[in-house]
Amino acid sequence: MKLFGGIEAGGTKFVCAVGTGPGDVRAEIRFPTTNPDETIGKAIEFFTRQADAEPLTALGIASFGPVDPDPASPTFGYITSTPKPGWAHTEFAGAVARALGIPVGFDTDVNGAALAEYRWGAARDLHTFLYLTIGTGLGGGGMARGALLHGLIHPEVGHMRVPRHPDDEFPGMCPFHGDCLEGMANGPAIEKRWGIKGQDLPDDHPAWTIEAHYLAMGVVNLICALSPQRVVMGGGVMDKKHLFPMIRGNVLDLLAGYVQAPAILRDIDRYIVAPGLGNQAGVLGAIALAERAATDV
Amino acid sequence: MKLFGGIEAGGTKFVCAVGTGPGDVRAEIRFPTTNPDETIGKAIEFFTRQADAEPLTALGIASFGPVDPDPASPTFGYITSTPKPGWAHTEFAGAVARALGIPVGFDTDVNGAALAEYRWGAARDLHTFLYLTIGTGLGGGGMARGALLHGLIHPEVGHMRVPRHPDDEFPGMCPFHGDCLEGMANGPAIEKRWGIKGQDLPDDHPAWTIEAHYLAMGVVNLICALSPQRVVMGGGVMDKKHLFPMIRGNVLDLLAGYVQAPAILRDIDRYIVAPGLGNQAGVLGAIALAERAATDV
Repeated sequence: MKLFGGIEAGGTKFVCAVGTGPGDVRAEIRFPTTNPDETIGKAIEFFTRQADAEPLTALGIASFGPVDPDPASPTFGYITSTPKPGWAHTEFAGAVARALGIPVGFDTDVNGAALAEYRWGAARDLHTFLYLTIGTGLGGGGMARGALLHGLIHPEVGHMRVPRHPDDEFPGMCPFHGDCLEGMANGPAIEKRWGIKGQDLPDDHPAWTIEAHYLAMGVVNLICALSPQRVVMGGGVMDKKHLFPMIRGNVLDLLAGYVQAPAILRDIDRYIVAPGLGNQAGVLGAIALAERAATDV
Repeated sequence: MKLFGGIEAGGTKFVCAVGTGPGDVRAEIRFPTTNPDETIGKAIEFFTRQADAEPLTALGIASFGPVDPDPASPTFGYITSTPKPGWAHTEFAGAVARALGIPVGFDTDVNGAALAEYRWGAARDLHTFLYLTIGTGLGGGGMARGALLHGLIHPEVGHMRVPRHPDDEFPGMCPFHGDCLEGMANGPAIEKRWGIKGQDLPDDHPAWTIEAHYLAMGVVNLICALSPQRVVMGGGVMDKKHLFPMIRGNVLDLLAGYVQAPAILRDIDRYIVAPGLGNQAGVLGAIALAERAATDV
Protein backbone atom coordinates (compact mmCIF):
# COMPACT_ATOMS: atom_id res chain seq x y z
CA MET A 1 0.00 0.00 0.00
CA LYS A 2 1.43 3.35 -1.04
CA LEU A 3 1.59 6.08 1.59
CA PHE A 4 1.34 9.76 0.67
CA GLY A 5 2.09 13.10 2.25
CA GLY A 6 -0.02 16.18 1.71
CA ILE A 7 0.41 19.87 2.49
CA GLU A 8 -2.67 22.07 2.54
CA ALA A 9 -0.84 25.37 2.37
CA GLY A 10 -3.16 28.19 3.37
CA GLY A 11 -2.38 31.85 3.82
CA THR A 12 -3.01 31.63 7.57
CA LYS A 13 -2.17 28.01 8.40
CA PHE A 14 -0.49 24.92 7.03
CA VAL A 15 -1.97 21.44 7.49
CA CYS A 16 0.46 18.56 6.89
CA ALA A 17 -0.84 15.02 6.80
CA VAL A 18 0.17 11.48 5.92
CA GLY A 19 -2.33 8.95 4.63
CA THR A 20 -3.92 7.27 1.64
CA GLY A 21 -7.35 8.88 1.41
CA PRO A 22 -10.60 9.50 3.31
CA GLY A 23 -10.74 7.48 6.51
CA ASP A 24 -7.01 6.87 6.42
CA VAL A 25 -5.27 10.07 7.46
CA ARG A 26 -2.72 8.67 9.90
CA ALA A 27 -0.88 11.71 11.17
CA GLU A 28 -1.60 15.40 10.91
CA ILE A 29 -0.10 18.63 12.22
CA ARG A 30 -1.22 22.22 11.86
CA PHE A 31 0.83 25.36 12.34
CA PRO A 32 0.51 29.03 11.43
CA THR A 33 1.89 30.32 8.14
CA THR A 34 4.80 32.59 9.10
CA ASN A 35 7.72 33.21 6.73
CA PRO A 36 8.50 30.73 3.93
CA ASP A 37 11.76 29.37 5.38
CA GLU A 38 10.28 28.60 8.76
CA THR A 39 6.93 27.35 7.49
CA ILE A 40 8.22 25.15 4.67
CA GLY A 41 11.02 24.04 7.01
CA LYS A 42 8.52 22.81 9.58
CA ALA A 43 6.64 20.87 6.93
CA ILE A 44 9.83 19.21 5.69
CA GLU A 45 10.79 18.31 9.27
CA PHE A 46 7.39 16.68 9.85
CA PHE A 47 7.53 14.60 6.67
CA THR A 48 11.16 13.60 7.25
CA ARG A 49 10.18 12.20 10.63
CA GLN A 50 7.12 10.45 9.19
CA ALA A 51 9.18 8.94 6.37
CA ASP A 52 11.63 7.49 8.91
CA ALA A 53 8.74 5.43 10.30
CA GLU A 54 7.28 4.50 6.91
CA PRO A 55 8.55 5.75 3.53
CA LEU A 56 6.33 8.11 1.55
CA THR A 57 5.74 7.35 -2.15
CA ALA A 58 5.00 10.96 -3.09
CA LEU A 59 3.84 14.25 -1.67
CA GLY A 60 1.22 16.74 -2.82
CA ILE A 61 0.97 20.47 -2.17
CA ALA A 62 -2.36 22.28 -2.52
CA SER A 63 -1.33 25.88 -2.09
CA PHE A 64 -2.70 29.38 -1.73
CA GLY A 65 -1.77 31.44 -4.76
CA PRO A 66 -1.26 32.65 -7.27
CA VAL A 67 1.02 29.74 -8.06
CA ASP A 68 2.77 28.40 -11.15
CA PRO A 69 1.22 24.96 -11.76
CA ASP A 70 2.76 24.41 -15.22
CA PRO A 71 5.32 21.56 -15.06
CA ALA A 72 6.94 22.91 -18.25
CA SER A 73 7.62 26.32 -16.70
CA PRO A 74 10.96 27.30 -15.10
CA THR A 75 9.02 28.55 -12.06
CA PHE A 76 6.82 25.44 -11.73
CA GLY A 77 5.96 24.87 -8.09
CA TYR A 78 6.49 28.48 -7.05
CA ILE A 79 4.10 30.75 -5.24
CA THR A 80 4.30 33.73 -7.59
CA SER A 81 2.84 37.23 -7.28
CA THR A 82 1.04 36.92 -3.94
CA PRO A 83 0.65 40.10 -1.90
CA LYS A 84 1.33 37.99 1.24
CA PRO A 85 4.51 39.52 2.77
CA GLY A 86 7.62 37.44 2.19
CA TRP A 87 5.94 34.82 0.02
CA ALA A 88 6.09 36.38 -3.45
CA HIS A 89 8.24 34.30 -5.83
CA THR A 90 8.88 31.50 -3.33
CA GLU A 91 10.08 28.15 -4.61
CA PHE A 92 7.88 25.61 -2.83
CA ALA A 93 7.46 22.24 -4.59
CA GLY A 94 11.10 22.11 -5.70
CA ALA A 95 12.42 22.80 -2.21
CA VAL A 96 10.25 20.06 -0.72
CA ALA A 97 11.13 17.57 -3.48
CA ARG A 98 14.88 18.11 -2.98
CA ALA A 99 14.61 17.77 0.80
CA LEU A 100 12.52 14.59 0.73
CA GLY A 101 13.74 12.97 -2.48
CA ILE A 102 10.25 11.96 -3.66
CA PRO A 103 7.93 13.17 -6.47
CA VAL A 104 5.92 16.25 -5.50
CA GLY A 105 2.57 17.18 -7.06
CA PHE A 106 1.65 20.84 -6.91
CA ASP A 107 -1.45 22.87 -7.68
CA THR A 108 -3.77 25.51 -6.27
CA ASP A 109 -5.69 24.76 -3.07
CA VAL A 110 -8.94 24.80 -5.07
CA ASN A 111 -7.66 22.47 -7.78
CA GLY A 112 -6.44 20.14 -5.04
CA ALA A 113 -9.88 20.15 -3.42
CA ALA A 114 -11.47 19.65 -6.85
CA LEU A 115 -9.23 16.64 -7.45
CA ALA A 116 -10.16 15.17 -4.05
CA GLU A 117 -13.86 15.62 -4.85
CA TYR A 118 -13.25 13.90 -8.19
CA ARG A 119 -11.34 11.06 -6.58
CA TRP A 120 -13.53 10.41 -3.53
CA GLY A 121 -16.31 12.99 -3.22
CA ALA A 122 -19.11 14.77 -5.07
CA ALA A 123 -17.47 14.84 -8.53
CA ARG A 124 -16.71 11.15 -9.01
CA ASP A 125 -16.96 9.93 -12.63
CA LEU A 126 -17.27 13.46 -14.02
CA HIS A 127 -14.81 14.89 -16.53
CA THR A 128 -15.88 18.53 -16.48
CA PHE A 129 -16.90 20.16 -13.21
CA LEU A 130 -16.22 23.07 -10.90
CA TYR A 131 -15.35 23.23 -7.23
CA LEU A 132 -16.03 26.65 -5.71
CA THR A 133 -15.13 27.78 -2.22
CA ILE A 134 -16.75 30.81 -0.64
CA GLY A 135 -15.14 31.90 2.60
CA THR A 136 -12.49 34.50 3.36
CA GLY A 137 -11.86 34.46 -0.37
CA LEU A 138 -13.93 33.24 -3.28
CA GLY A 139 -12.13 30.87 -5.59
CA GLY A 140 -12.63 27.93 -7.84
CA GLY A 141 -10.89 25.02 -9.44
CA GLY A 142 -12.07 22.07 -11.42
CA MET A 143 -11.56 19.95 -14.46
CA ALA A 144 -12.27 20.22 -18.15
CA ARG A 145 -12.47 16.85 -19.86
CA GLY A 146 -10.38 15.21 -17.18
CA ALA A 147 -7.61 17.79 -16.86
CA LEU A 148 -7.32 20.18 -13.92
CA LEU A 149 -7.98 23.74 -15.08
CA HIS A 150 -4.76 25.57 -15.88
CA GLY A 151 -4.00 27.82 -18.75
CA LEU A 152 -2.05 31.02 -18.87
CA ILE A 153 -1.99 30.63 -15.07
CA HIS A 154 -5.08 29.20 -13.35
CA PRO A 155 -8.68 30.37 -12.99
CA GLU A 156 -9.51 33.24 -10.65
CA VAL A 157 -13.27 32.87 -10.70
CA GLY A 158 -13.78 35.25 -7.77
CA HIS A 159 -12.73 38.17 -9.92
CA MET A 160 -15.46 37.84 -12.55
CA ARG A 161 -17.74 40.87 -12.87
CA VAL A 162 -21.48 40.29 -12.46
CA PRO A 163 -24.48 42.64 -12.33
CA ARG A 164 -25.12 44.12 -8.90
CA HIS A 165 -28.24 43.28 -6.92
CA PRO A 166 -30.60 46.24 -7.50
CA ASP A 167 -31.07 46.85 -3.74
CA ASP A 168 -27.38 46.60 -2.90
CA GLU A 169 -25.26 49.72 -2.55
CA PHE A 170 -22.25 48.03 -0.96
CA PRO A 171 -19.13 49.23 -2.81
CA GLY A 172 -17.39 45.86 -2.60
CA MET A 173 -14.15 45.08 -0.87
CA CYS A 174 -11.77 43.62 -3.40
CA PRO A 175 -8.60 45.75 -3.20
CA PHE A 176 -8.15 45.32 -6.96
CA HIS A 177 -11.68 45.48 -8.36
CA GLY A 178 -14.07 46.71 -5.67
CA ASP A 179 -17.29 45.03 -6.69
CA CYS A 180 -16.11 41.87 -8.42
CA LEU A 181 -17.79 38.63 -7.34
CA GLU A 182 -15.35 38.05 -4.47
CA GLY A 183 -15.57 41.67 -3.39
CA MET A 184 -19.37 41.41 -3.12
CA ALA A 185 -19.87 37.87 -1.88
CA ASN A 186 -17.00 36.58 0.25
CA GLY A 187 -17.39 36.20 4.00
CA PRO A 188 -15.78 39.56 4.87
CA ALA A 189 -18.16 41.33 2.42
CA ILE A 190 -21.16 39.89 4.27
CA GLU A 191 -19.76 41.03 7.61
CA LYS A 192 -18.85 44.49 6.33
CA ARG A 193 -22.20 45.02 4.60
CA TRP A 194 -24.34 44.10 7.60
CA GLY A 195 -22.01 44.69 10.54
CA ILE A 196 -22.53 41.09 11.69
CA LYS A 197 -20.61 37.96 10.78
CA GLY A 198 -22.47 35.75 8.29
CA GLN A 199 -22.49 32.83 10.72
CA ASP A 200 -24.49 34.99 13.17
CA LEU A 201 -27.09 36.21 10.66
CA PRO A 202 -30.46 34.37 10.81
CA ASP A 203 -31.51 32.34 7.78
CA ASP A 204 -34.31 34.78 6.92
CA HIS A 205 -32.04 37.86 6.93
CA PRO A 206 -32.02 39.85 3.65
CA ALA A 207 -28.26 39.29 3.54
CA TRP A 208 -28.88 35.84 2.12
CA THR A 209 -31.04 37.12 -0.74
CA ILE A 210 -28.17 39.39 -1.74
CA GLU A 211 -25.60 36.62 -1.25
CA ALA A 212 -27.61 34.12 -3.31
CA HIS A 213 -27.95 36.72 -6.08
CA TYR A 214 -24.19 37.11 -6.46
CA LEU A 215 -23.34 33.43 -6.10
CA ALA A 216 -26.02 32.43 -8.62
CA MET A 217 -24.70 35.03 -11.09
CA GLY A 218 -21.24 33.54 -10.69
CA VAL A 219 -22.51 29.99 -11.16
CA VAL A 220 -24.52 30.99 -14.26
CA ASN A 221 -21.48 32.64 -15.81
CA LEU A 222 -19.40 29.56 -15.14
CA ILE A 223 -22.09 27.31 -16.62
CA CYS A 224 -21.98 29.52 -19.74
CA ALA A 225 -18.17 29.54 -19.85
CA LEU A 226 -17.40 25.89 -19.17
CA SER A 227 -20.61 23.81 -19.23
CA PRO A 228 -19.71 21.86 -16.08
CA GLN A 229 -21.46 18.56 -15.39
CA ARG A 230 -21.76 19.60 -11.74
CA VAL A 231 -20.94 22.56 -9.50
CA VAL A 232 -19.63 21.76 -6.01
CA MET A 233 -19.86 24.67 -3.57
CA GLY A 234 -17.98 24.64 -0.27
CA GLY A 235 -16.22 26.99 2.13
CA GLY A 236 -17.37 28.65 5.34
CA VAL A 237 -20.16 30.73 3.78
CA MET A 238 -21.73 27.60 2.27
CA ASP A 239 -22.03 26.07 5.74
CA LYS A 240 -25.27 28.07 5.67
CA LYS A 241 -27.09 25.23 3.95
CA HIS A 242 -30.21 27.27 3.26
CA LEU A 243 -28.18 29.08 0.59
CA PHE A 244 -28.26 26.01 -1.65
CA PRO A 245 -31.99 26.08 -2.53
CA MET A 246 -31.81 29.87 -2.92
CA ILE A 247 -28.87 29.63 -5.33
CA ARG A 248 -30.47 26.77 -7.27
CA GLY A 249 -33.69 28.75 -7.68
CA ASN A 250 -31.84 31.84 -8.88
CA VAL A 251 -29.74 29.81 -11.32
CA LEU A 252 -32.88 28.30 -12.86
CA ASP A 253 -34.48 31.75 -13.12
CA LEU A 254 -31.37 33.29 -14.68
CA LEU A 255 -30.85 30.49 -17.21
CA ALA A 256 -34.57 30.76 -18.09
CA GLY A 257 -34.65 27.37 -19.77
CA TYR A 258 -31.88 28.24 -22.21
CA VAL A 259 -29.55 25.38 -21.28
CA GLN A 260 -31.76 22.39 -22.10
CA ALA A 261 -30.05 19.79 -19.95
CA PRO A 262 -32.11 17.48 -17.72
CA ALA A 263 -29.28 17.67 -15.15
CA ILE A 264 -30.18 21.33 -14.68
CA LEU A 265 -33.87 21.46 -15.57
CA ARG A 266 -34.99 18.37 -13.69
CA ASP A 267 -32.22 17.54 -11.26
CA ILE A 268 -30.66 20.75 -10.02
CA ASP A 269 -30.51 19.43 -6.43
CA ARG A 270 -27.82 17.05 -7.63
CA TYR A 271 -26.25 19.62 -9.98
CA ILE A 272 -25.34 22.32 -7.44
CA VAL A 273 -24.14 20.44 -4.39
CA ALA A 274 -22.07 20.61 -1.21
CA PRO A 275 -18.64 18.94 -1.18
CA GLY A 276 -18.71 15.22 -0.50
CA LEU A 277 -15.61 15.52 1.68
CA GLY A 278 -16.75 18.48 3.77
CA ASN A 279 -13.87 20.37 5.35
CA GLN A 280 -11.49 17.48 4.63
CA ALA A 281 -11.33 18.40 0.92
CA GLY A 282 -8.27 20.60 1.53
CA VAL A 283 -5.90 18.07 3.02
CA LEU A 284 -7.32 15.21 0.93
CA GLY A 285 -6.71 17.41 -2.11
CA ALA A 286 -3.03 17.51 -1.22
CA ILE A 287 -3.01 13.71 -0.82
CA ALA A 288 -4.82 13.32 -4.16
CA LEU A 289 -2.15 15.49 -5.80
CA ALA A 290 0.49 13.20 -4.27
CA GLU A 291 -1.28 10.11 -5.58
CA ARG A 292 -1.37 11.67 -9.05
CA ALA A 293 2.33 12.66 -8.85
CA ALA A 294 3.18 9.05 -8.02
CA THR A 295 1.23 7.81 -11.04
CA ASP A 296 2.76 10.36 -13.38
CA VAL A 297 6.31 9.15 -12.70
CA MET B 1 -2.37 12.57 -49.14
CA LYS B 2 -5.63 12.28 -47.25
CA LEU B 3 -8.59 14.26 -48.52
CA PHE B 4 -11.31 15.54 -46.20
CA GLY B 5 -14.82 16.85 -46.45
CA GLY B 6 -16.20 19.60 -44.26
CA ILE B 7 -19.67 20.99 -43.59
CA GLU B 8 -19.95 24.43 -42.04
CA ALA B 9 -23.58 24.13 -41.01
CA GLY B 10 -25.00 27.55 -40.23
CA GLY B 11 -28.53 28.52 -39.36
CA THR B 12 -28.91 30.44 -42.62
CA LYS B 13 -26.52 28.66 -45.00
CA PHE B 14 -24.48 25.51 -45.40
CA VAL B 15 -20.96 25.56 -46.83
CA CYS B 16 -19.65 22.19 -48.01
CA ALA B 17 -16.02 21.85 -49.02
CA VAL B 18 -13.38 19.28 -49.89
CA GLY B 19 -9.73 19.86 -49.14
CA THR B 20 -6.81 19.33 -46.80
CA GLY B 21 -6.38 22.72 -45.11
CA PRO B 22 -5.69 26.40 -45.79
CA GLY B 23 -4.70 27.01 -49.39
CA ASP B 24 -6.05 23.64 -50.44
CA VAL B 25 -9.84 23.86 -50.51
CA ARG B 26 -10.54 22.16 -53.83
CA ALA B 27 -14.29 22.32 -54.18
CA GLU B 28 -16.92 24.25 -52.35
CA ILE B 29 -20.67 24.80 -52.57
CA ARG B 30 -23.02 26.99 -50.58
CA PHE B 31 -26.78 26.68 -50.26
CA PRO B 32 -29.45 28.03 -47.92
CA THR B 33 -30.44 26.08 -44.81
CA THR B 34 -34.02 24.94 -45.48
CA ASN B 35 -35.45 21.81 -43.81
CA PRO B 36 -33.11 19.09 -42.50
CA ASP B 37 -33.95 16.42 -45.11
CA GLU B 38 -33.37 18.71 -48.06
CA THR B 39 -30.34 20.49 -46.61
CA ILE B 40 -28.49 17.44 -45.29
CA GLY B 41 -29.53 15.59 -48.47
CA LYS B 42 -27.86 18.24 -50.65
CA ALA B 43 -24.68 17.99 -48.60
CA ILE B 44 -24.60 14.18 -48.92
CA GLU B 45 -25.19 14.48 -52.68
CA PHE B 46 -22.25 16.89 -53.04
CA PHE B 47 -19.84 14.68 -51.07
CA THR B 48 -20.98 11.52 -52.85
CA ARG B 49 -20.13 13.15 -56.18
CA GLN B 50 -16.80 14.42 -54.85
CA ALA B 51 -15.92 10.99 -53.44
CA ASP B 52 -16.54 9.41 -56.85
CA ALA B 53 -13.72 11.56 -58.21
CA GLU B 54 -11.41 11.05 -55.22
CA PRO B 55 -12.29 9.15 -52.03
CA LEU B 56 -12.64 11.11 -48.80
CA THR B 57 -10.85 9.83 -45.69
CA ALA B 58 -13.26 11.47 -43.26
CA LEU B 59 -15.74 14.29 -42.94
CA GLY B 60 -16.22 16.99 -40.32
CA ILE B 61 -19.34 18.90 -39.36
CA ALA B 62 -19.10 22.25 -37.53
CA SER B 63 -22.70 22.97 -36.73
CA PHE B 64 -25.00 25.61 -35.35
CA GLY B 65 -26.46 24.46 -32.07
CA PRO B 66 -27.15 23.49 -29.48
CA VAL B 67 -25.69 20.14 -30.47
CA ASP B 68 -24.73 16.95 -28.67
CA PRO B 69 -20.95 16.66 -29.12
CA ASP B 70 -20.44 13.78 -26.64
CA PRO B 71 -19.41 10.60 -28.51
CA ALA B 72 -20.60 8.52 -25.53
CA SER B 73 -24.15 9.90 -25.73
CA PRO B 74 -27.01 8.15 -27.55
CA THR B 75 -27.80 11.46 -29.28
CA PHE B 76 -24.17 12.20 -30.30
CA GLY B 77 -24.12 14.14 -33.54
CA TYR B 78 -27.64 15.52 -33.15
CA ILE B 79 -28.74 19.12 -33.31
CA THR B 80 -30.77 19.17 -30.08
CA SER B 81 -33.02 21.89 -28.63
CA THR B 82 -32.64 24.57 -31.30
CA PRO B 83 -35.56 26.96 -31.77
CA LYS B 84 -34.92 26.80 -35.54
CA PRO B 85 -38.15 25.38 -37.06
CA GLY B 86 -37.83 21.74 -38.10
CA TRP B 87 -34.30 21.26 -36.80
CA ALA B 88 -34.86 20.36 -33.14
CA HIS B 89 -33.63 16.81 -32.35
CA THR B 90 -32.22 16.19 -35.84
CA GLU B 91 -29.73 13.40 -36.31
CA PHE B 92 -26.93 14.92 -38.37
CA ALA B 93 -23.51 13.26 -38.05
CA GLY B 94 -24.97 9.74 -37.99
CA ALA B 95 -27.04 10.32 -41.12
CA VAL B 96 -24.01 11.63 -43.00
CA ALA B 97 -21.75 8.83 -41.76
CA ARG B 98 -24.20 6.13 -42.88
CA ALA B 99 -24.67 7.73 -46.30
CA LEU B 100 -20.97 8.19 -47.00
CA GLY B 101 -19.47 5.27 -45.08
CA ILE B 102 -16.60 7.30 -43.61
CA PRO B 103 -15.78 8.57 -40.09
CA VAL B 104 -17.53 11.84 -39.25
CA GLY B 105 -16.27 14.36 -36.69
CA PHE B 106 -18.88 16.61 -35.17
CA ASP B 107 -18.81 19.68 -32.94
CA THR B 108 -20.17 23.19 -32.59
CA ASP B 109 -19.35 25.76 -35.25
CA VAL B 110 -17.27 27.68 -32.70
CA ASN B 111 -15.33 24.65 -31.51
CA GLY B 112 -14.67 23.82 -35.16
CA ALA B 113 -13.32 27.31 -35.78
CA ALA B 114 -11.29 27.06 -32.55
CA LEU B 115 -9.78 23.79 -33.75
CA ALA B 116 -8.90 25.34 -37.13
CA GLU B 117 -7.22 28.28 -35.35
CA TYR B 118 -5.31 25.77 -33.22
CA ARG B 119 -4.28 23.72 -36.22
CA TRP B 120 -3.35 26.50 -38.67
CA GLY B 121 -4.19 29.92 -37.25
CA ALA B 122 -3.82 32.21 -34.25
CA ALA B 123 -3.87 29.52 -31.55
CA ARG B 124 -1.09 27.24 -32.75
CA ASP B 125 0.90 25.54 -29.96
CA LEU B 126 -1.55 26.62 -27.26
CA HIS B 127 -3.38 24.15 -25.06
CA THR B 128 -5.88 26.49 -23.42
CA PHE B 129 -7.49 29.27 -25.43
CA LEU B 130 -10.80 30.75 -26.48
CA TYR B 131 -12.24 31.54 -29.88
CA LEU B 132 -15.10 34.05 -29.72
CA THR B 133 -17.30 35.12 -32.57
CA ILE B 134 -19.37 38.27 -32.41
CA GLY B 135 -21.86 38.64 -35.24
CA THR B 136 -25.54 37.76 -35.51
CA GLY B 137 -24.94 35.75 -32.34
CA LEU B 138 -22.19 35.84 -29.77
CA GLY B 139 -20.60 32.50 -29.08
CA GLY B 140 -17.37 30.88 -28.12
CA GLY B 141 -15.44 27.67 -28.28
CA GLY B 142 -11.93 26.70 -27.40
CA MET B 143 -9.70 24.25 -25.66
CA ALA B 144 -8.71 23.49 -22.11
CA ARG B 145 -5.40 21.64 -21.88
CA GLY B 146 -5.71 20.32 -25.39
CA ALA B 147 -9.34 19.17 -25.32
CA LEU B 148 -12.16 21.02 -27.06
CA LEU B 149 -14.52 22.51 -24.47
CA HIS B 150 -17.47 20.25 -23.80
CA GLY B 151 -19.05 19.34 -20.52
CA LEU B 152 -22.65 18.93 -19.62
CA ILE B 153 -23.26 20.24 -23.17
CA HIS B 154 -20.93 22.91 -24.54
CA PRO B 155 -20.17 26.50 -23.54
CA GLU B 156 -22.69 29.24 -24.27
CA VAL B 157 -20.47 32.21 -23.49
CA GLY B 158 -22.88 34.70 -25.02
CA HIS B 159 -25.33 34.14 -22.21
CA MET B 160 -23.07 35.24 -19.36
CA ARG B 161 -24.36 38.19 -17.36
CA VAL B 162 -22.10 41.24 -17.06
CA PRO B 163 -22.56 44.70 -15.54
CA ARG B 164 -24.29 47.16 -17.84
CA HIS B 165 -22.49 50.23 -19.19
CA PRO B 166 -23.63 53.11 -16.95
CA ASP B 167 -24.79 55.21 -19.93
CA ASP B 168 -26.63 52.38 -21.65
CA GLU B 169 -30.37 51.96 -21.23
CA PHE B 170 -30.84 49.45 -24.01
CA PRO B 171 -32.98 46.58 -22.64
CA GLY B 172 -31.10 43.91 -24.56
CA MET B 173 -32.49 41.61 -27.18
CA CYS B 174 -31.88 38.05 -26.06
CA PRO B 175 -35.29 36.34 -26.17
CA PHE B 176 -34.28 34.29 -23.10
CA HIS B 177 -32.31 36.75 -20.97
CA GLY B 178 -32.77 40.26 -22.30
CA ASP B 179 -29.51 41.89 -21.29
CA CYS B 180 -27.07 38.98 -21.28
CA LEU B 181 -23.78 39.54 -23.12
CA GLU B 182 -25.19 38.42 -26.47
CA GLY B 183 -28.36 40.45 -25.94
CA MET B 184 -26.29 43.60 -25.40
CA ALA B 185 -23.37 43.13 -27.78
CA ASN B 186 -24.25 41.09 -30.85
CA GLY B 187 -24.63 42.75 -34.25
CA PRO B 188 -28.43 43.06 -34.06
CA ALA B 189 -28.13 44.77 -30.62
CA ILE B 190 -25.86 47.43 -32.13
CA GLU B 191 -28.30 48.04 -34.99
CA LYS B 192 -31.35 48.12 -32.69
CA ARG B 193 -29.69 50.43 -30.15
CA TRP B 194 -28.55 53.02 -32.68
CA GLY B 195 -30.91 52.49 -35.61
CA ILE B 196 -27.93 51.98 -37.92
CA LYS B 197 -26.07 48.79 -38.81
CA GLY B 198 -22.71 48.49 -37.05
CA GLN B 199 -20.85 48.33 -40.34
CA ASP B 200 -22.21 51.80 -41.19
CA LEU B 201 -21.31 53.46 -37.87
CA PRO B 202 -18.14 55.58 -37.93
CA ASP B 203 -15.21 54.47 -35.78
CA ASP B 204 -15.62 57.41 -33.40
CA HIS B 205 -19.33 56.74 -32.73
CA PRO B 206 -20.21 56.20 -29.03
CA ALA B 207 -21.63 52.80 -30.05
CA TRP B 208 -18.10 51.40 -30.01
CA THR B 209 -17.41 52.58 -26.45
CA ILE B 210 -20.50 50.67 -25.34
CA GLU B 211 -19.61 47.67 -27.47
CA ALA B 212 -16.03 47.54 -26.16
CA HIS B 213 -17.37 47.74 -22.59
CA TYR B 214 -19.48 44.61 -23.00
CA LEU B 215 -16.95 42.62 -24.97
CA ALA B 216 -14.18 43.45 -22.49
CA MET B 217 -16.41 42.40 -19.59
CA GLY B 218 -17.02 39.09 -21.35
CA VAL B 219 -13.31 38.59 -22.03
CA VAL B 220 -12.39 39.42 -18.41
CA ASN B 221 -14.93 36.92 -17.09
CA LEU B 222 -13.58 34.26 -19.40
CA ILE B 223 -10.01 35.02 -18.34
CA CYS B 224 -11.16 34.56 -14.73
CA ALA B 225 -13.07 31.37 -15.53
CA LEU B 226 -10.58 29.57 -17.75
CA SER B 227 -7.23 31.40 -17.76
CA PRO B 228 -6.81 31.13 -21.53
CA GLN B 229 -3.36 31.56 -23.04
CA ARG B 230 -4.92 33.64 -25.81
CA VAL B 231 -8.33 35.02 -26.82
CA VAL B 232 -9.14 35.01 -30.54
CA MET B 233 -12.02 37.31 -31.51
CA GLY B 234 -13.73 37.03 -34.87
CA GLY B 235 -17.12 37.45 -36.49
CA GLY B 236 -18.71 40.31 -38.40
CA VAL B 237 -18.64 42.82 -35.55
CA MET B 238 -14.89 42.30 -35.06
CA ASP B 239 -14.30 43.33 -38.69
CA LYS B 240 -14.32 46.78 -37.07
CA LYS B 241 -10.63 46.50 -36.24
CA HIS B 242 -10.58 49.64 -34.08
CA LEU B 243 -12.48 47.59 -31.48
CA PHE B 244 -9.36 45.57 -30.70
CA PRO B 245 -7.34 48.35 -29.00
CA MET B 246 -10.48 49.52 -27.20
CA ILE B 247 -11.19 46.03 -25.84
CA ARG B 248 -7.56 45.47 -24.89
CA GLY B 249 -7.48 48.76 -22.98
CA ASN B 250 -10.69 47.96 -21.12
CA VAL B 251 -9.49 44.45 -20.26
CA LEU B 252 -6.29 45.85 -18.75
CA ASP B 253 -8.29 48.43 -16.77
CA LEU B 254 -10.76 45.84 -15.51
CA LEU B 255 -8.10 43.31 -14.50
CA ALA B 256 -6.25 46.15 -12.73
CA GLY B 257 -2.99 44.23 -12.56
CA TYR B 258 -4.53 41.30 -10.70
CA VAL B 259 -3.54 38.62 -13.20
CA GLN B 260 0.23 38.95 -13.15
CA ALA B 261 1.03 37.37 -16.48
CA PRO B 262 3.46 39.06 -18.89
CA ALA B 263 1.27 37.80 -21.76
CA ILE B 264 -1.43 40.18 -20.51
CA LEU B 265 0.54 42.93 -18.81
CA ARG B 266 3.23 43.39 -21.45
CA ASP B 267 1.95 41.72 -24.58
CA ILE B 268 -1.81 42.19 -24.78
CA ASP B 269 -1.63 42.99 -28.51
CA ARG B 270 -0.73 39.35 -29.03
CA TYR B 271 -3.10 38.11 -26.31
CA ILE B 272 -6.39 39.41 -27.69
CA VAL B 273 -6.17 38.88 -31.43
CA ALA B 274 -8.10 38.49 -34.68
CA PRO B 275 -8.44 34.99 -36.17
CA GLY B 276 -5.46 33.87 -38.23
CA LEU B 277 -7.79 32.27 -40.78
CA GLY B 278 -10.19 35.20 -41.19
CA ASN B 279 -13.58 34.18 -42.52
CA GLN B 280 -12.20 30.79 -43.59
CA ALA B 281 -12.17 29.54 -39.98
CA GLY B 282 -15.67 28.10 -40.36
CA VAL B 283 -15.12 25.75 -43.27
CA LEU B 284 -11.54 24.99 -42.21
CA GLY B 285 -12.95 24.12 -38.79
CA ALA B 286 -15.09 21.46 -40.40
CA ILE B 287 -12.05 20.12 -42.27
CA ALA B 288 -10.02 20.14 -39.04
CA LEU B 289 -12.77 18.12 -37.35
CA ALA B 290 -12.57 15.63 -40.25
CA GLU B 291 -8.79 15.39 -39.90
CA ARG B 292 -9.24 14.68 -36.18
CA ALA B 293 -11.96 12.09 -36.83
CA ALA B 294 -9.60 10.29 -39.21
CA THR B 295 -6.86 10.21 -36.55
CA ASP B 296 -9.21 8.99 -33.83
CA VAL B 297 -10.15 5.85 -35.79
